[in-house]
Amino acid sequence: MAEKRYLLTPGPTPVPPEVLAELAKPVIHHRERDFREIYERCLARLQDVYRTKNDVLMFTTSGTGAFESAVANLTSAGDRQLVLSAGNFGERWAGMVRAFGADLVHARLEWGETPEPEDLRSALADAGDVKVVYLTHSETSTGVVCDVQALAAVAKEAGALVVVDAVSSLGAVPLESDLWDIDVVVSGSQKALMCPPGLAMTAVSDAAYAAQGTGARFYFDWNRTRKAQEVFDASFTPAVSLVRALDVALGLLLDEGLEAVFDRHVRLGRACREGAKAMGLELSSPDDDSSAVVTAAHTPEGIDSDELVLLLRDRHGVTLAPGQGELKGKIFRIGHIGYYDVFDITTALAAVELALVELGAEIERGVAVTRALEAFEHSPV
Amino acid sequence: MAEKRYLLTPGPTPVPPEVLAELAKPVIHHRERDFREIYERCLARLQDVYRTKNDVLMFTTSGTGAFESAVANLTSAGDRQLVLSAGNFGERWAGMVRAFGADLVHARLEWGETPEPEDLRSALADAGDVKVVYLTHSETSTGVVCDVQALAAVAKEAGALVVVDAVSSLGAVPLESDLWDIDVVVSGSQKALMCPPGLAMTAVSDAAYAAQGTGARFYFDWNRTRKAQEVFDASFTPAVSLVRALDVALGLLLDEGLEAVFDRHVRLGRACREGAKAMGLELSSPDDDSSAVVTAAHTPEGIDSDELVLLLRDRHGVTLAPGQGELKGKIFRIGHIGYYDVFDITTALAAVELALVELGAEIERGVAVTRALEAFEHSPV
Repeated sequence: MAEKRYLLTPGPTPVPPEVLAELAKPVIHHRERDFREIYERCLARLQDVYRTKNDVLMFTTSGTGAFESAVANLTSAGDRQLVLSAGNFGERWAGMVRAFGADLVHARLEWGETPEPEDLRSALADAGDVKVVYLTHSETSTGVVCDVQALAAVAKEAGALVVVDAVSSLGAVPLESDLWDIDVVVSGSQKALMCPPGLAMTAVSDAAYAAQGTGARFYFDWNRTRKAQEVFDASFTPAVSLVRALDVALGLLLDEGLEAVFDRHVRLGRACREGAKAMGLELSSPDDDSSAVVTAAHTPEGIDSDELVLLLRDRHGVTLAPGQGELKGKIFRIGHIGYYDVFDITTALAAVELALVELGAEIERGVAVTRALEAFEHSPV
Repeated sequence: MAEKRYLLTPGPTPVPPEVLAELAKPVIHHRERDFREIYERCLARLQDVYRTKNDVLMFTTSGTGAFESAVANLTSAGDRQLVLSAGNFGERWAGMVRAFGADLVHARLEWGETPEPEDLRSALADAGDVKVVYLTHSETSTGVVCDVQALAAVAKEAGALVVVDAVSSLGAVPLESDLWDIDVVVSGSQKALMCPPGLAMTAVSDAAYAAQGTGARFYFDWNRTRKAQEVFDASFTPAVSLVRALDVALGLLLDEGLEAVFDRHVRLGRACREGAKAMGLELSSPDDDSSAVVTAAHTPEGIDSDELVLLLRDRHGVTLAPGQGELKGKIFRIGHIGYYDVFDITTALAAVELALVELGAEIERGVAVTRALEAFEHSPV
């Protein structure tokens, strides 16, 4: 038969059939009334998911592009800005902030560490006057989800604006943009929002608008995009097919209800961890319910995790994520945000078990799936 | 019945059913072998369409974003750069070049004028030492397609790099990137390439790589994208669904053959002009075979063209493009690049005839369609 494929990465994630069907609809013009109706509804749904009354600016780009919109709009050359990083994405933002000419203070934790308020407080104290603090809510490269509410509070106390990378956390775990007083929240279509990649969003507070810098920008300019969105227009031809797909995907998400979605992700994470541990694997991501986005685990001694990922993909049609950067070859990652139920997790675990045995590991057979199903049963408190 | 819709704008353009079906396929991961195979083939097909051996860098963005990649990579603050404009898009590029801190020389012709080599030669002579010249091959706002080969030669003579906006000309009319020695050619997925909006491309010559400036950039950085593409990877998660759609669309285009496609566009333009004139309308775009991309016409005295466009859309399901900027309310535009045959043109003409009569114009009935079919018959020399 034709190969069946299983996509179990923390982005891109699988897209529900209703959303795929929407993509196949004939292209409509972005200045048509029917597109504007879709756009208006989609932007309103984004505000619901973001839990914000602020504008959510939409860009045809990847998550990195939406992040660039934050950096390009908030930076004047020489501004002191602080990036708190503990993994691949945090480091990307540090590189970007530097590229835009800021005076970067890079508070760099070890990959896999969970950034704590005290880390930020001491970094800010050392740095002196910082205009902007960049945080990564869910560090997809390590599986760590930090307490961004507490971190944001520390940054605000120090008088800084707060920019949060929520690319893999928005719609995945609780994130209260307004209640937690976060100025800029960046996300993308291809993770918990159950849409293909190609759209990314930046929610912007009044304080952030007021703090715009003198840096060069055009495509990612906030004011231009904001002005267009006031009449449900886009500054530049948007990816109309992706916008209507995102609208449908957000509808599915909100119909399920954010709380129910978050609960499901926690239980999927629990199932994944318990299954991995039942196979005797050592977790790399934290072993608690904060790990609702992606589960990262070490391969057994002597087995290269890249080899496991390749074997799974080439022989079994199962796509997991490899380790990135410092963690390359050491860990593999199973994503569980978006369009996943528990049987996706048991499929991933069964495939990992099979492939590890093929690679010579000694694994007790059959325990992972059973243990995962048990762990999934009970809703978190 | 459900309303039937007809999209006849110069972008987004209608997408063939094979391409729409490709969009609805399950999402695959961008670092998978199967995606890389698609990506490799798509990039090679782009080189065929571009008629270049240079890298064609692909970005998830609109055409404006790919243009920004040119400006952001080629500009150091204070560089003298020249934009030759004669319409809405040329003016956009002037605004962008200014936003990136160049010392802009804006050679601004009237909207609808055809830029001639002499215009550029004298502007360059006045300006002195110019590092980069920006040209618009097909000015979609007016329907003018210029002789970009002759203009590029003038710019090269003056020692400048040449950047060409080919967003609505690539795959629409002849464009020989290498033969005409054009350094940077920018295009987008949603016009003659018969794909939805969301991808845009920048072909870059060695001379252009060597001339990179110190301007801030990250998402649109050429070196980063070039390096990733060497192994058929993307720097940042690309719009995978759109990439596979573009690959299929480019396959259709190349199967038809570029020469056959260009010939069809010329004949569609001829049909459209002859039909419009048969109704007694005054053309706004040039009345010759250079007008292969979009036909622009004035509405009869006393009829606002925005009103015509709205009526066509709301009552008849036919979407044409209105006039932009200075031409707003004065002209309407019918696109004929991409997935169009002559019956799309007769539909557009029949609808315009009907709507103009509804708006009170005196139009001889039935002549436009017949005249268009006759004009389409004969292949251009």
